[in-house]
Amino acid sequence: MKHLLSINDLNRETIQQLLDRAQVLLEQVVQQNTQLNTLSGQVITHLFFEPSTRTQYSFTIAAQRLGAFVLNPPINLTSMTKGESLLDMVRTFIAMGTQLFVVRHREEKTAQWLADSIQQHAIVINGGDGCHQHPTQALLDLLTIAQYKKQFEALNVAIVGDIVHSRVARSLISGLHIMGCQDIRLIAPPELLDAKMTDKTAQVEHSIEKGLVDADVVVCLRIQRERMADTDAPEPDQFFKQYGLTPERLALAKPTAIVLHPGPINQGVEIDPAVVDSPQSMILQQVTNGVAMRMAVIEWLCA
Amino acid sequence: MKHLLSINDLNRETIQQLLDRAQVLLEQVVQQNTQLNTLSGQVITHLFFEPSTRTQYSFTIAAQRLGAFVLNPPINLTSMTKGESLLDMVRTFIAMGTQLFVVRHREEKTAQWLADSIQQHAIVINGGDGCHQHPTQALLDLLTIAQYKKQFEALNVAIVGDIVHSRVARSLISGLHIMGCQDIRLIAPPELLDAKMTDKTAQVEHSIEKGLVDADVVVCLRIQRERMADTDAPEPDQFFKQYGLTPERLALAKPTAIVLHPGPINQGVEIDPAVVDSPQSMILQQVTNGVAMRMAVIEWLCA
Amino acid sequence: MKHLLSINDLNRETIQQLLDRAQVLLEQVVQQNTQLNTLSGQVITHLFFEPSTRTQYSFTIAAQRLGAFVLNPPINLTSMTKGESLLDMVRTFIAMGTQLFVVRHREEKTAQWLADSIQQHAIVINGGDGCHQHPTQALLDLLTIAQYKKQFEALNVAIVGDIVHSRVARSLISGLHIMGCQDIRLIAPPELLDAKMTDKTAQVEHSIEKGLVDADVVVCLRIQRERMADTDAPEPDQFFKQYGLTPERLALAKPTAIVLHPGPINQGVEIDPAVVDSPQSMILQQVTNGVAMRMAVIEWLCA
Repeated sequence: MKHLLSINDLNRETIQQLLDRAQVLLEQVVQQNTQLNTLSGQVITHLFFEPSTRTQYSFTIAAQRLGAFVLNPPINLTSMTKGESLLDMVRTFIAMGTQLFVVRHREEKTAQWLADSIQQHAIVINGGDGCHQHPTQALLDLLTIAQYKKQFEALNVAIVGDIVHSRVARSLISGLHIMGCQDIRLIAPPELLDAKMTDKTAQVEHSIEKGLVDADVVVCLRIQRERMADTDAPEPDQFFKQYGLTPERLALAKPTAIVLHPGPINQGVEIDPAVVDSPQSMILQQVTNGVAMRMAVIEWLCA
Repeated sequence: MKHLLSINDLNRETIQQLLDRAQVLLEQVVQQNTQLNTLSGQVITHLFFEPSTRTQYSFTIAAQRLGAFVLNPPINLTSMTKGESLLDMVRTFIAMGTQLFVVRHREEKTAQWLADSIQQHAIVINGGDGCHQHPTQALLDLLTIAQYKKQFEALNVAIVGDIVHSRVARSLISGLHIMGCQDIRLIAPPELLDAKMTDKTAQVEHSIEKGLVDADVVVCLRIQRERMADTDAPEPDQFFKQYGLTPERLALAKPTAIVLHPGPINQGVEIDPAVVDSPQSMILQQVTNGVAMRMAVIEWLCA
Repeated sequence: MKHLLSINDLNRETIQQLLDRAQVLLEQVVQQNTQLNTLSGQVITHLFFEPSTRTQYSFTIAAQRLGAFVLNPPINLTSMTKGESLLDMVRTFIAMGTQLFVVRHREEKTAQWLADSIQQHAIVINGGDGCHQHPTQALLDLLTIAQYKKQFEALNVAIVGDIVHSRVARSLISGLHIMGCQDIRLIAPPELLDAKMTDKTAQVEHSIEKGLVDADVVVCLRIQRERMADTDAPEPDQFFKQYGLTPERLALAKPTAIVLHPGPINQGVEIDPAVVDSPQSMILQQVTNGVAMRMAVIEWLCA
């Protein structure tokens, strides 16, 4: 039995297979509004300790398009923590028929802890754990890039914003590396960078004007205000002045550059509304791709 | 792409088609507890900013009997208002596959605002907006009347109670006019009437005893206590004394008169329990008709 | 039309039929993760006034495996009580197509009251009412016992713990009696026993060491802390010292004895984690059996 806890669990061949399968599911099922019977009678349970409308409903729709039952039990966010009571609940859901859990939690490695605890009794997908990993987000980002760019090796990818708190950035950087991408630039003020990440995996650039030059892909991260309370991070309007993705700054990238954002968007903080609505923005395409990619992942794990 | 924002969006021919189709769906699907595959694979998302168990579940069952997926995301009532964050969420649900939204909101014209904002990207049904419109309620009321009365033109319809705060009254009066009904009486104290409505569309009667004489249909409105805080409206027991629908008062209408109420009922405030349970009461029939009519509306909009 | 309000509504023959049918559904549907169309198009509505993740989702999965729609309306626990507003809501759900309700409530005989109120208009299953009855729990306990023990007549069943507050105990004792079981021992301190129950239906034993000798089945009850506030019941650690089910105490029972617990478990209060995880523990098997038994019950009531 396989789990999907980190993008690093996957090799290039597997990621390529998932990209190919997701593209087929996108065209034949998602865009056609149809439904498969692949997982008819199977039970998928969501454990969202951290609320996330878009991720939760993306997984819900993906599961339903595969024909599975989805349970979205309300999680008591305050009383339920890692430990016996959570494990008791998880074992109960397995005994009731759950074959796959999607877990999201504010703490790092909760999905790993869960997979270790339940071992071969059910599949675990990490739907985001703290600042650590969010593998299906990385996969849908890779799918979006692959739809518009031919080769990962040749790409210049600029990732802008709150990198230190971003599981999206961590997962995507790893995914890009696995796919052979050599040129990744991390654009952020020093207090929003992680020294460990920048050592070897990507170049650092403190000036967005320099960092965006000739980029093929610009990934704009959400400012995680709730996680920035204790840092010396700049105020929102100050951040927008220094690092906000405006049409003028985007013009420094290649004319064919595409813009990604994991959502939800803070308009006027990390991104200008004019960029959100521009033809270069693939933000809503990412959402649609998310359903197809989660279908591909669930199908692959349950096969 | 069509929306259903107000009963005034529909002409007589379309309403008659919806009445006919709803009657067929009532007899062949709703009353048989069966299910169609018409909308198999399609996604309907409910946006209920104002909670309403009966309307929400009526739409849910209607959609399920058509074979659609229904998403009932929990809406954060305090933080989510008209504007960018709502629009961002709505665009996300469209990108995830939503083809139709049912929207209910305390503020008038939210459904209209939404339809204008998303244009041709998804269908909007107004599930009630402030004191303004509730078109599917008007349609199910018309269906209930049509099941018991032959011709709308010849009917005398009495609408009793809190008219000024009632989107049900506004929608039904318009619907009755469209269907050719000439004789509508609005029975309420002056502080619960809307001067604009009473100018031309219906006669006003402050005495319930006079207003009910020879009525074919008596529509009893729910007292919207939460909306009456600022008015000079009478206290509940005072209201019941002056305007409550009792068996004695109902006897002033035709012996064949039917009684409608949109629910939920305030027993002993606007209506006597003996009237609720009398053979003239079509209140539960309205609920059943609501499922069939919402099926007909969804089917028509998605066709 | 039948209801299931108490295990005492059933005779031995009916219980045996339900046990046989549940075993078939367990093997052919639950363990195969498949789905039937038996109740396709039918609507089941859950009214859980007292929250219970495991019972609610067990019924949800059972209903879905039978092909039914399940409505899980959020219940306003504070405002909704027995009376007109509840009855109005229930009648509305019936008019929308509900054929079966599962009701759980803190107050005794709510399910009975509901069944009396709605009469032949829908089916009621008691999903637990106060300290009174929980018939589907008793049935799944009987199924678990029947899977491991040949004859109910010959069994020695020990029930340990908070008996006075336990609808599980009350229902199971009655169920065991109906099935011919003669030797039931109730093990608890005097303040957690019910004098009425112990008169004739079962033997009382205040010492767990004496009570467990030669038991075939040991049923460990959950300590209902929230219901024990007003009693002279011992503190949790004191209770564990005197009545906790440890491996040493379990060794006093027959070597083939099985351990049941209705869940959720208070580890280290009524039961030792080593017993929960021992091969004698059938606690997770009970959960799986619960889905199969609820399928059998719903199928039988809707037939």
